[in-house]
Amino acid sequence: MILTTKFDDGVNLHEIGKRWRPRRLLLLLLCLNAVSSLVIASPQTCPADLSTKCADSGEWEGEFFPGIPTIKYEGPSSKNPLSFKWYNANEEILGKTMKDWMRFSVAFWHTFRGSGADPFGSATKNWPWEDGTNSLAMAKRRMRANFEFIKKLGVDLWCFHDRDIAPDAETLEETNKNLDEVVALAKKLQGTKIHPLWGTAQLFLHPRYMHGGATSSEVGVYAYAAAQVKKALEVTHYLGGENYVFWGGREGYQTLLNTDMGRELDHMARFLEAAVAYKKKIGFNGTLLIEPKPQEPTKHQYDWDAATSANFLRKYGLIDEFKLNIECNHATLSGHSCHHELETARINGLLGNIDANTGDPQVGWDTDQFLTDISEATMVMLSVVRNGGLAPGGFNFDAKLRRESTDVEDLFIAHISGMDTLARGLRNVAKLIEDGSLDDLVRKRYQSFDSEIGAAIEAGKGDFEMLEKKAMEWGEPKVPSAKQELAEMIFQSAL
Amino acid sequence: MILTTKFDDGVNLHEIGKRWRPRRLLLLLLCLNAVSSLVIASPQTCPADLSTKCADSGEWEGEFFPGIPTIKYEGPSSKNPLSFKWYNANEEILGKTMKDWMRFSVAFWHTFRGSGADPFGSATKNWPWEDGTNSLAMAKRRMRANFEFIKKLGVDLWCFHDRDIAPDAETLEETNKNLDEVVALAKKLQGTKIHPLWGTAQLFLHPRYMHGGATSSEVGVYAYAAAQVKKALEVTHYLGGENYVFWGGREGYQTLLNTDMGRELDHMARFLEAAVAYKKKIGFNGTLLIEPKPQEPTKHQYDWDAATSANFLRKYGLIDEFKLNIECNHATLSGHSCHHELETARINGLLGNIDANTGDPQVGWDTDQFLTDISEATMVMLSVVRNGGLAPGGFNFDAKLRRESTDVEDLFIAHISGMDTLARGLRNVAKLIEDGSLDDLVRKRYQSFDSEIGAAIEAGKGDFEMLEKKAMEWGEPKVPSAKQELAEMIFQSAL
Amino acid sequence: MILTTKFDDGVNLHEIGKRWRPRRLLLLLLCLNAVSSLVIASPQTCPADLSTKCADSGEWEGEFFPGIPTIKYEGPSSKNPLSFKWYNANEEILGKTMKDWMRFSVAFWHTFRGSGADPFGSATKNWPWEDGTNSLAMAKRRMRANFEFIKKLGVDLWCFHDRDIAPDAETLEETNKNLDEVVALAKKLQGTKIHPLWGTAQLFLHPRYMHGGATSSEVGVYAYAAAQVKKALEVTHYLGGENYVFWGGREGYQTLLNTDMGRELDHMARFLEAAVAYKKKIGFNGTLLIEPKPQEPTKHQYDWDAATSANFLRKYGLIDEFKLNIECNHATLSGHSCHHELETARINGLLGNIDANTGDPQVGWDTDQFLTDISEATMVMLSVVRNGGLAPGGFNFDAKLRRESTDVEDLFIAHISGMDTLARGLRNVAKLIEDGSLDDLVRKRYQSFDSEIGAAIEAGKGDFEMLEKKAMEWGEPKVPSAKQELAEMIFQSAL
Amino acid sequence: MILTTKFDDGVNLHEIGKRWRPRRLLLLLLCLNAVSSLVIASPQTCPADLSTKCADSGEWEGEFFPGIPTIKYEGPSSKNPLSFKWYNANEEILGKTMKDWMRFSVAFWHTFRGSGADPFGSATKNWPWEDGTNSLAMAKRRMRANFEFIKKLGVDLWCFHDRDIAPDAETLEETNKNLDEVVALAKKLQGTKIHPLWGTAQLFLHPRYMHGGATSSEVGVYAYAAAQVKKALEVTHYLGGENYVFWGGREGYQTLLNTDMGRELDHMARFLEAAVAYKKKIGFNGTLLIEPKPQEPTKHQYDWDAATSANFLRKYGLIDEFKLNIECNHATLSGHSCHHELETARINGLLGNIDANTGDPQVGWDTDQFLTDISEATMVMLSVVRNGGLAPGGFNFDAKLRRESTDVEDLFIAHISGMDTLARGLRNVAKLIEDGSLDDLVRKRYQSFDSEIGAAIEAGKGDFEMLEKKAMEWGEPKVPSAKQELAEMIFQSAL
Repeated sequence: MILTTKFDDGVNLHEIGKRWRPRRLLLLLLCLNAVSSLVIASPQTCPADLSTKCADSGEWEGEFFPGIPTIKYEGPSSKNPLSFKWYNANEEILGKTMKDWMRFSVAFWHTFRGSGADPFGSATKNWPWEDGTNSLAMAKRRMRANFEFIKKLGVDLWCFHDRDIAPDAETLEETNKNLDEVVALAKKLQGTKIHPLWGTAQLFLHPRYMHGGATSSEVGVYAYAAAQVKKALEVTHYLGGENYVFWGGREGYQTLLNTDMGRELDHMARFLEAAVAYKKKIGFNGTLLIEPKPQEPTKHQYDWDAATSANFLRKYGLIDEFKLNIECNHATLSGHSCHHELETARINGLLGNIDANTGDPQVGWDTDQFLTDISEATMVMLSVVRNGGLAPGGFNFDAKLRRESTDVEDLFIAHISGMDTLARGLRNVAKLIEDGSLDDLVRKRYQSFDSEIGAAIEAGKGDFEMLEKKAMEWGEPKVPSAKQELAEMIFQSAL
Repeated sequence: MILTTKFDDGVNLHEIGKRWRPRRLLLLLLCLNAVSSLVIASPQTCPADLSTKCADSGEWEGEFFPGIPTIKYEGPSSKNPLSFKWYNANEEILGKTMKDWMRFSVAFWHTFRGSGADPFGSATKNWPWEDGTNSLAMAKRRMRANFEFIKKLGVDLWCFHDRDIAPDAETLEETNKNLDEVVALAKKLQGTKIHPLWGTAQLFLHPRYMHGGATSSEVGVYAYAAAQVKKALEVTHYLGGENYVFWGGREGYQTLLNTDMGRELDHMARFLEAAVAYKKKIGFNGTLLIEPKPQEPTKHQYDWDAATSANFLRKYGLIDEFKLNIECNHATLSGHSCHHELETARINGLLGNIDANTGDPQVGWDTDQFLTDISEATMVMLSVVRNGGLAPGGFNFDAKLRRESTDVEDLFIAHISGMDTLARGLRNVAKLIEDGSLDDLVRKRYQSFDSEIGAAIEAGKGDFEMLEKKAMEWGEPKVPSAKQELAEMIFQSAL
Repeated sequence: MILTTKFDDGVNLHEIGKRWRPRRLLLLLLCLNAVSSLVIASPQTCPADLSTKCADSGEWEGEFFPGIPTIKYEGPSSKNPLSFKWYNANEEILGKTMKDWMRFSVAFWHTFRGSGADPFGSATKNWPWEDGTNSLAMAKRRMRANFEFIKKLGVDLWCFHDRDIAPDAETLEETNKNLDEVVALAKKLQGTKIHPLWGTAQLFLHPRYMHGGATSSEVGVYAYAAAQVKKALEVTHYLGGENYVFWGGREGYQTLLNTDMGRELDHMARFLEAAVAYKKKIGFNGTLLIEPKPQEPTKHQYDWDAATSANFLRKYGLIDEFKLNIECNHATLSGHSCHHELETARINGLLGNIDANTGDPQVGWDTDQFLTDISEATMVMLSVVRNGGLAPGGFNFDAKLRRESTDVEDLFIAHISGMDTLARGLRNVAKLIEDGSLDDLVRKRYQSFDSEIGAAIEAGKGDFEMLEKKAMEWGEPKVPSAKQELAEMIFQSAL
Repeated sequence: MILTTKFDDGVNLHEIGKRWRPRRLLLLLLCLNAVSSLVIASPQTCPADLSTKCADSGEWEGEFFPGIPTIKYEGPSSKNPLSFKWYNANEEILGKTMKDWMRFSVAFWHTFRGSGADPFGSATKNWPWEDGTNSLAMAKRRMRANFEFIKKLGVDLWCFHDRDIAPDAETLEETNKNLDEVVALAKKLQGTKIHPLWGTAQLFLHPRYMHGGATSSEVGVYAYAAAQVKKALEVTHYLGGENYVFWGGREGYQTLLNTDMGRELDHMARFLEAAVAYKKKIGFNGTLLIEPKPQEPTKHQYDWDAATSANFLRKYGLIDEFKLNIECNHATLSGHSCHHELETARINGLLGNIDANTGDPQVGWDTDQFLTDISEATMVMLSVVRNGGLAPGGFNFDAKLRRESTDVEDLFIAHISGMDTLARGLRNVAKLIEDGSLDDLVRKRYQSFDSEIGAAIEAGKGDFEMLEKKAMEWGEPKVPSAKQELAEMIFQSAL
């Protein structure tokens, strides 16, 4: 199955192996792409003509999600799993529609290439539209499924990696052609309403990137990565993408014993400078985003967290060219709460986008679950509201079905649940703001700095001699309660 | 490549798909096996006739590891990476040869099926003997490589999962036939000197086990798992295996919300009881071992750690039928030091075998690295020596090359390094015992319990009224220093 | 001693020191008790006559909490921090009053001896009724405050450590006398409505316990601990306590290098056997509870978690004599969710009591915060309801104000918040049960075991040969979706 | 207050309390200082005249450490715990004496104020020179002990917090006077050979700092902290200190719900700017050091790790005025290895000083143990050697005896063990450098960047168009093995 669309049937594949050695890698890659982190299982409910019509042309008779209606808002009392209970796209909250606050996007990779494989288990998903290949035709059919999904879910944005939407080929030129073909279809399917929240290049799946892309010890890999990002920038721009993301999954080290960290970081900076230059050259005005993650797959990634990324950007003079894409699961893996990372990004002027997923607090790896915690969602939305929204960024669901969730409807249930949770968070923030008592509590805590001396200090005029004089004059300072329990009570009351 | 050995070349594979739908799952499984956690890359240095002679017959011209000599002991001053610096198999230490203390075995899965894939990346290994298939011929060739490796490394033991050594087929019957064929070859290749330290069944890779094997919510899966373990017990027995291991990688839960934990644990107990009965029935006298692991792939495994496993065994009356296989990396993931888990197993009379690997203390998942920490190795060997050795258990290297280690020689270097580290640990223990001051320090700490009252307490005759009387009579007790820093100094001096 | 250099009050305290050397330790202990983890700050709003009347007699004019009314249920819309929004004591839910489900108790130590000290900072609390001493008079006054607090909060239960409620003296005899005197007052103040949920002995603060109590390397300490537990059992019994708790804060090790873990565990078993015997001798019918905790203060405690404690109890034949007191913060520190530990205890027939606090998921030590997470509270109450309640156990708030919360009203706000959160959890459980769809989902997952073969397996009649036959007969088993996202959606809808 | 109920010494201490209300806080503070994290236990082997002569004057007859000789280097074969086995101060390694590489200093706080108290237990240490007070006389006697300790250990450097060496008084003026008096003695005792590696201000123990010092919500506390740092800078300068450290133990938050993080960080920047200005004003040329720590005591500190601190310094334009003091235990608590933090500091030009302690990899709080791990010590020294040494910084032992280590000799054993471990690390680094194969391995990994294209990239001339052209020209890049196992083998061979 896997090989058919690339090689004429009827050919002795051993012969191919012998005659076209270079092509063998391609075969393997196809298989890899198809299997190792992607959808593999053969279709069970595929129309009778799949192996002819669909497989060849990417066409598909009828709907991809035949039992699933367009998802509607039915309010909190609804028991219908395929409805929104809290997310009401056009309802206005705090001066904007929910849609504008949230700017939800569907992540192509998890939703359409997630196979359910894990380090100890092979793929479990068995979507009816998949034919088990990684062919161009399959890529196009999958793209149609994507747009049906997006429309039924009622969102306008999506995001993607280059290699998820189109198959690798033998050469970079051919691979780019594949990508162009799928992108042309996507452009058509987008219509006037839909466009990418962001695009990105997949610089981690292929073995060539095992030592990194921009930080690979091999100059050839660095060049290849540059070429791939160049193309991904072009494609994102062409599709009307509003942002472009860098996630450095392989930019880090497995052991410092064999690593020249300083040199690798210099290379990473050179790479990003070149990306900035090229973005400007092609007139792409989207925001460049760095997505911090502490580790996994590497033992230690260079973009550990928001502050580490900010330090890197400042050190290399790139601070004005980038923002951050904060992922909640990455936040907790780096030892911070999601709210902390969002606030750190915001305070540094870097909050650009949110990967609204969640991890398991007792688990030490990236579980990429849909966020269902109301309390965390409320804190996430607090940061968003303080930031005045995220546009041109938004939310993407870097979240995947559990390996054991194998029904097509699970894809919808998961997204609805994630969207509703954040929508509920936004409603809670509105309650908190309306009530005002939490803001009051915070404002009052710092009111001693609203004094003359406080203002002088904040203006940089609080020298140590003056302050010592004041300290002696004032005697032992009074220190009031921080009222944490009251703050928590007020916060919880809004949930 | 992937399909050739199962289907005649020259067949329209689409046609196959159409005509033999049921077989499609098989194809996918083959692919899965070949790729998702296994060796995939096409051979680069394969002899010219691989695609004919080797691929069909499993034969291989010449050595698998042509540049690698039989590894010799050359002593600590040697700079030769392909020599032992500390492990001298027949040297006697503390009354046994090093070989007898260590009982090293090679783990087939990591060494011969490890592909370098990780959750974000596809396979990186490209061993010359691999032809990219998961065929029976390939399985046999791989088995030959295994025995050449074992012999060159100078060990007598190996261990395996059923599905790693032989390919899955369409039905259980056929799969068993595949297994029989490979096992027959292994039996021949073992000769008189080599045999398995242990065998086991792979109950985690296949999607059927996604909810567990013995604890699956599906009775059909429970039965399938039973049939698979039955066969694996038979095969292990046939090959002269000394132990049989249960690792419950999928026996656990992803969320308690959809799980009946009590019922699942009851099922697990029933399953293990049946295994005990069957083992006795076939006259297999090997030790049954449970391998605790806290989590990964599941959010929470039932055999969390040594104490949890012991509680389970005691609750269900299985405590005398099992021992534990302690893995250092699992120990640290469960919040304990490896030494703690070994001592807990030992004190409960359950120390049966050791997976001598190590994790990264800053990483929250199973990295399965070769142990290179001298201090940890010394503590591991302390437990082994206190246990009077591990036989019929031993050490297996549940350790894999890093994804980025892609030279054939890396396989040898890693094993040598792991063996040398433990050998150095054993030498250090001998130094500690000879010196005697650490033992003295511990003995003296408890000497007050060597008194009359201490003996009464230890004999269960220390009732509270008598003790209260003593406490009042004695007044405030003197409490000496625990001398931790001195103990550490003595310990480190032996390294 | 402490005061001599600052106050020239006519007495040579050094002389006191010289004359009564043995007493110096006592002084230090008093000071330790007063300071290192307890209330210390001098009263600021103390009535004019405190230094005479109150201090000498333990009397206190007027209320301890003059601005605080008896806390009433006002419903979810109330903005009054000093009211219950969810806890309505006598409202019936799922067939019992909320009071009977919850059985809330106030923990004397955190509420009345919590000083706000932490490893890097000294005490911050400054309660008006404290005079800075650890005198018997102060102990009595504090006990009066305790009962006023309990009554205003509207609960009937409290719990205590021996040394928290009464001061240490020079000898055990005198210390016991102090305890008797305070206990007599407590008995009187309890009246007919109030009694202890549980009592316990403090075997961790005093330096004599630095190597443990029951597991100390010193026999004299073992005896002392026995005498202390004997008295604490008596006192708990006298006050009508329903349970007695063992928390082994020092029963563990700092390093295995200087520890004989096997011998220490044997001692611990002997100690608990003696406790069981003494309990029976005095006719105390309360439940004995072990409180698992993984570590802190020791590097590794012996009662690591529920399963470890259960294994210990089974190994030493004590399983029928004890239940467990599960603390949520301890659960998460041991790598489990609170819900997991509760279910593990319940399944082992050991769920006796709950320390309803919470930790911080990003913090590696015991923060003992009041639980404010609605989702976690709902899962806690799920276990309680499945257990048919906790009686004779209940909930105690092993939770403390943050160090920076220094208003008296913070004590009330924190307790109200914790009680309301659990009450909200109970209400959510009622909604889940009424709705029924989550239970349905779980029941259906396992329905294949409700078949004939399933029943045979569960009855222990599923031997491997029969199962293999079935597996071959059935072919590849069907494995449905685990519906985790749906389960989460249903669960969250009830919050 | 504390003593009234136990001693009837004829004085009504309550009267004192009434008359001198303001002084009560002072009493409490004295007690706090004496107890909550400091040495408290009464002397047991105190000379007969302690209570008169010593206590009043700070004099002490004879040696403080009478049984302890000056510690000598005796080589690795020595069994004498009171000797160096690896640290030979004047031996030259890699072109410098060991003394010059290491620049070891004794930390006054742990060594002389460490009481053994922990969050669940009171003080355990009982040093003979302590009289249980926090008097000025006691402070002076303790300072004499400090210098005897330093001399016997054979080091030239020490470090201190202001409040550890001299007692708090009622007013800042008086407190400063106390400090001056002790500092004058220290100056005398230093002689010509000894001086501080660094000084610092203790801005965390006192309750006034419960919300932070520079980031307190109270302007009065900010001023007080400024006054305290001003004085500490002066005193450090006066004593010839080479550095000044900022550890922000309270500069962080307990919950974001009540915190204005942006405003607090601005205040912290203003504070440090003022410190820089004052340092220059008084002509202090020492290095200002920030000591990162992720958390504890706060839930989240602002100086989380090296990169976070660097980002802060860059954001506020302070990057050229500060370096970092890296603590190994803080490194691991923040999710990094110590080596990572050292290298991060070094690469950012910020490696100033090292707190050479270690934590427990399974423990989630700061254990401040003496480093005894040879492997870690070797990596620490690798960074030091790459940095060309640390001067004017050095090593301080922010490490404390375990609570249960109560012999005076334990203080020496611990320091010797820590110094020997690092010395062994340095010797190992010398072996690695001499051998050269690890350096070779790393250099070769990156050699493709020593090409023309590599150089162009490193010079910032690698634009995406040129790189794409190259990538297409070169085809699939070759990616060699990272040789991690070989690197580990080489590294371990040097231990």
